[in-house]
Amino acid sequence: MARNPKHDILFQPIKIGPKILKNRFYQVPHCIGAGSEKPGTQAANRGMKAEGGWGACCTEYCSISPESDDCHRVSARIWDEGDVINLRHLTDSLHKHGALGGIELWYGGAHAPCMESRAIPYGPTAQASEFEYLTYCHEADDDDIKYLQGLYVAAAKRAVQAGFDIIYVYGAHSYLPLQFLSHYYNRRTDRYGGSFENRARFWIETLAAVKAAVGHEAAIATRFAVDTLYGADGVQALDDGLKFVELVDREGVVDLWDLNIGDIAEWGEDAGPSRFYQAGHQRNWTDGAKRVAKVPVLGVSRETSPDDMAARILDGRLDILGFARPSIADPFIPLKIQEGRYEDIRECIGCNVCISRWEIGGPPMICTQNATANEEYRRGWHPEKFAKTSSSCSVLVVGAGPAGMECARVLGERGYDVHLREADTELGGRVRKVVKYPGLSEWARVITYRQIQLQKLKSVEVHTGVGKMTADQVLSYGADRVVIATGSYWANDGTNFVTHSPVEGLDASLPYICTPEQVLMQNKPVGDRVLVVDCDGYFTGVSIAEFLADRGKKVKILTPLKGVAPYTHFTLEAPNLHRMMHEKHIHELTSHWLLKVQPGRATAYNIFRDGYKRAPGPTTGELPRRPGTEVVEVEFDTIIAATGRVPNDSLWRELAARRAEWAKHDVQAIYQAGDCYAPGLIAQAVFEGHRIAREFESSNPQRPQPWIRERQVWGHETYPKISDRQVVG
Amino acid sequence: MARNPKHDILFQPIKIGPKILKNRFYQVPHCIGAGSEKPGTQAANRGMKAEGGWGACCTEYCSISPESDDCHRVSARIWDEGDVINLRHLTDSLHKHGALGGIELWYGGAHAPCMESRAIPYGPTAQASEFEYLTYCHEADDDDIKYLQGLYVAAAKRAVQAGFDIIYVYGAHSYLPLQFLSHYYNRRTDRYGGSFENRARFWIETLAAVKAAVGHEAAIATRFAVDTLYGADGVQALDDGLKFVELVDREGVVDLWDLNIGDIAEWGEDAGPSRFYQAGHQRNWTDGAKRVAKVPVLGVSRETSPDDMAARILDGRLDILGFARPSIADPFIPLKIQEGRYEDIRECIGCNVCISRWEIGGPPMICTQNATANEEYRRGWHPEKFAKTSSSCSVLVVGAGPAGMECARVLGERGYDVHLREADTELGGRVRKVVKYPGLSEWARVITYRQIQLQKLKSVEVHTGVGKMTADQVLSYGADRVVIATGSYWANDGTNFVTHSPVEGLDASLPYICTPEQVLMQNKPVGDRVLVVDCDGYFTGVSIAEFLADRGKKVKILTPLKGVAPYTHFTLEAPNLHRMMHEKHIHELTSHWLLKVQPGRATAYNIFRDGYKRAPGPTTGELPRRPGTEVVEVEFDTIIAATGRVPNDSLWRELAARRAEWAKHDVQAIYQAGDCYAPGLIAQAVFEGHRIAREFESSNPQRPQPWIRERQVWGHETYPKISDRQVVG
Repeated sequence: MARNPKHDILFQPIKIGPKILKNRFYQVPHCIGAGSEKPGTQAANRGMKAEGGWGACCTEYCSISPESDDCHRVSARIWDEGDVINLRHLTDSLHKHGALGGIELWYGGAHAPCMESRAIPYGPTAQASEFEYLTYCHEADDDDIKYLQGLYVAAAKRAVQAGFDIIYVYGAHSYLPLQFLSHYYNRRTDRYGGSFENRARFWIETLAAVKAAVGHEAAIATRFAVDTLYGADGVQALDDGLKFVELVDREGVVDLWDLNIGDIAEWGEDAGPSRFYQAGHQRNWTDGAKRVAKVPVLGVSRETSPDDMAARILDGRLDILGFARPSIADPFIPLKIQEGRYEDIRECIGCNVCISRWEIGGPPMICTQNATANEEYRRGWHPEKFAKTSSSCSVLVVGAGPAGMECARVLGERGYDVHLREADTELGGRVRKVVKYPGLSEWARVITYRQIQLQKLKSVEVHTGVGKMTADQVLSYGADRVVIATGSYWANDGTNFVTHSPVEGLDASLPYICTPEQVLMQNKPVGDRVLVVDCDGYFTGVSIAEFLADRGKKVKILTPLKGVAPYTHFTLEAPNLHRMMHEKHIHELTSHWLLKVQPGRATAYNIFRDGYKRAPGPTTGELPRRPGTEVVEVEFDTIIAATGRVPNDSLWRELAARRAEWAKHDVQAIYQAGDCYAPGLIAQAVFEGHRIAREFESSNPQRPQPWIRERQVWGHETYPKISDRQVVG
Repeated sequence: MARNPKHDILFQPIKIGPKILKNRFYQVPHCIGAGSEKPGTQAANRGMKAEGGWGACCTEYCSISPESDDCHRVSARIWDEGDVINLRHLTDSLHKHGALGGIELWYGGAHAPCMESRAIPYGPTAQASEFEYLTYCHEADDDDIKYLQGLYVAAAKRAVQAGFDIIYVYGAHSYLPLQFLSHYYNRRTDRYGGSFENRARFWIETLAAVKAAVGHEAAIATRFAVDTLYGADGVQALDDGLKFVELVDREGVVDLWDLNIGDIAEWGEDAGPSRFYQAGHQRNWTDGAKRVAKVPVLGVSRETSPDDMAARILDGRLDILGFARPSIADPFIPLKIQEGRYEDIRECIGCNVCISRWEIGGPPMICTQNATANEEYRRGWHPEKFAKTSSSCSVLVVGAGPAGMECARVLGERGYDVHLREADTELGGRVRKVVKYPGLSEWARVITYRQIQLQKLKSVEVHTGVGKMTADQVLSYGADRVVIATGSYWANDGTNFVTHSPVEGLDASLPYICTPEQVLMQNKPVGDRVLVVDCDGYFTGVSIAEFLADRGKKVKILTPLKGVAPYTHFTLEAPNLHRMMHEKHIHELTSHWLLKVQPGRATAYNIFRDGYKRAPGPTTGELPRRPGTEVVEVEFDTIIAATGRVPNDSLWRELAARRAEWAKHDVQAIYQAGDCYAPGLIAQAVFEGHRIAREFESSNPQRPQPWIRERQVWGHETYPKISDRQVVG
């Protein structure tokens, strides 16, 4: 299929400052967990996007000074010669494919906890961060302001040395320039505080200084949240937002506007999870700026539809399309559009597990849709290229959930003769349940992408509605190798991580107790007063609670965790989920667990009910602290039990028990992928299915191959060099 | 002063397996945030302890496989040749001083989230971790058990290559061997489950395999929690604990027992914060094992008293003294005891900020007492050696809180002529308040150590009770340089991180509103019903709540944070603090903030009360979501406001405004240290005071010098080498 001509606009070059962007696809700054400390990972991840056709790719936020140190989270840093070497490797990987490299110069003010550097950040006004409790900044005086602007300039010069084409002064997400601009932070009474012009001064002066220093060699960009979404208390799109764009443009100090909305404490208003925000949710805020802007404007919005992308430009709403998450899910979107291969686009589902790893701090970014994300360097995986097998090996994949579909797809790409067999009439496994939850319908893209790809693969046969395979059927199927991907189910007896045991009286065969499956897939009746029992801590408990509240039920969530759905803090869903719970009157009983369940009544206890003083020594058979006896009785009509997941591994266990018979049936090996091996995120199931297929020729694909680790090796160079260190005391 | 002969026993060598430990001082495994990825930091930190006289120093827990990957937390790893190189550098740094090197081989089972490796851990039984929600392990079958034991053996062989003398199979803190031993985890019915002997089999076989492989070259140790403190539901000291020691010793597979108590989910029962546990709190559990053990036994207990240390050995309760936190606070304890310099021992205060950084994941360990901890390599700081100045510069330090005392001490050690002046009659600053809180009396050691050292320094004069110095007094004092360290105070108007503004009606000059200072230091009367308003999130809010509950008040804590005192989760104080709150009927109202305060009534709101759906676009002056209007009225007699800290910087501001006069008074420079510059942890104030003194000759000591960073630099070797990678797909 050829490209639709209305998408041609996406491939028109555009000038930004002294540089030409070859098309309108622009990967805005986003984190991947590599920073400037894992240069191979960094360069290979962004370089893959350059190969996939992106016109420009940026680093994640890049610190300009140890005073802006986000450890435990991973930012890039451009502090010294070592960083220049590492970031040069990144820009080389982009230039090789004709893409520009952008660097987002970052100074966080009070939001930078500086746990590695132990430095103290400056801010416009001395105050505590609303993002990082226990973290305060120091009020910058006039000298400090000059010093700070000097930090930006010095970093910009190093950025040019490192080969960057686009240099940002980063002011979105409530970092330093915005802190000066916003009344919320800036309480100064000097020429950097008070009037709008005074509050804008720091930002404009900084841009001017950076432009004067490197503007002839690089385009100068700024990232600006046109609306902090605080209403009258913050920066507002139709007032300060436009005014600031006009003011800056009048000075001619910016070559590119990178616009978004929101702040840092609740930046899910920008990187909106699909649960709350569909593609384009920022358009009404950001797409107004072009009316006043004199230089190109780019905006984000997790777009995955080429028509929507083109329309934003054709309508004159934007000049350039910014992407973060869609470029992670599919680094080849531009090339696929260019070649008219629309059906091959692997769309972002907006689950934000990518972001969750940054929020956790430290781990590499992962992606539910793209198992190769961040594996380009360390595992040598290419998202679109697969080593072809010369083997005639036939593979049976049992179960078409996320792991099975992905495993079959990658084996198929590699040329294996694959049969993917699904008991049910539809593909998708657990994803079919998940999409029934309020707001999670986009997660169906996990299925649709793979379904389409599987259809295209000549060496893959997909069989649905075949019922549960028995061990006999598997052994006699005629496959050389077998991958079991039969998923998991919610424990029907209350097995949980608190006791690692069932809960007395919690039996999902009873009419008043349901697992999420029974509600979603079997329409098991649910009474008026619902108690959701959640040990999972991610989306299931809170989602089934909302699902039932929407159907008029009175819902309470009981969890042994300290809060409801704590993992959604990392995916940026938490604030609106808490608002939703408040609005829908979903109550919570946290730090509690169940002693037993009787009809209509659950007996729970506070997990901190025991005495806080420990006995002076051991006594056999006794708890070393006063055992608590208080309980809380919770009345209910129905309990929904999301207490723990259990691998659906009976097929595997039977096959394992009959290992001696494999050879007789010419079955060489049987592996497990996804939840039936160990329950995990959907991203983990997709990864496992992918990995097994990539490593199918290793001696035991069940166990992963080593990957390249990036870290200091003793005896090799470090920066600053020891000889550079001013040891004075 | 000479050494007390009763301490001689501490310096008697002892044989452990094929090795001789030169004395009884043993640094047990503890984390520092370096792992095997920051080899310079790792070697310099432990090497400093070797220099300070420790007989043996161990790594932190050291992963034997990517299946046991604790990322986001930092463990050591011995997976490949790169790790061997890096850890060899560590053992070299120990051997140079005659210390043995120990390595704690770790496999975490379900507790390892594997966020970097994306691998799946094995466990005795498939289940979810009670430590890491969302993390499940896969049940190991017989083949997998052999494979796991092979991982320990292979790691042990690499450990010998890396020069280690003592090799652990790590079973404490609920890691894999304990998971097999304990019914809580192990639900197997094969020869590795069921009876005690069956459950002990994995551990004993693993020890036997490791001993067979490397026992002639290294001592084999195991770390074992003799009591998991679960009462009848777990491993119990007087029953299973002793039985296991006997069983293992009968097999002759261990050369050293490293004993402690507790589990992983609540490991503050082992690394007990001083708030709840004084030195020696484990003795009654661990010191019984020697009655049955055939090989040397070591136990920990945060001992800092040489008499207590000696007694444990003289009484036959232990053979070797294990230390973690005391060795961080003072790496030179052994040498100081050996030389009879008892008064120089810098005692651990048990605040657990060291541990907090591991719990946060990623940041380097810090220490409240020892500012040089983890700065040995990267900043080149030695805890006991100071570059002497040849300058005759005189320095006035204003304020003898943590920052001022430490700054004066280090300047004094360096030979500067220092006057330390304190307005109050006693040294200590804010620490004098903190020690009044229940359980925090040991924090006074921050003062006493420095007080003693300051007395010994000939070039330091300490003046107390001098009242607040004016700018005139500072300028005319005659000092060449000045360090202002005047601390901070709790906002008396409710200034907080939510609004960055005061709270209407919250005025600490009113009789019914107090700051913590007013309660602790000025005995301002407090009524019966107390509302503690806490935006700090660390110890202050919960501590003043307990302080007042102990005086019969009815106390409620209101906080905008999601939980009470979340930072105490990282210091391991949280579980017992929650139990304490439950026991003392301290109530909480979390995720709420104050609209206004009237006499007897505070008006609060749920911070998630606004609508969860955002408007489709911007409207100037309006919140983009339905504004919530619900409020909660809280009745009170007294409010205690810990809403935010404000730098006590009026002296500095006056001096800064009169900068033009400095030269006239021969004042060359004035700096700020500690809370008056920016409020922070006590550890940060001590660090800042220390750093400024170390860097006193730099061009501007207010701003830190760069330090050596350890990370991959592109173009240098990585491991496994790219050529080693089996790229198969």
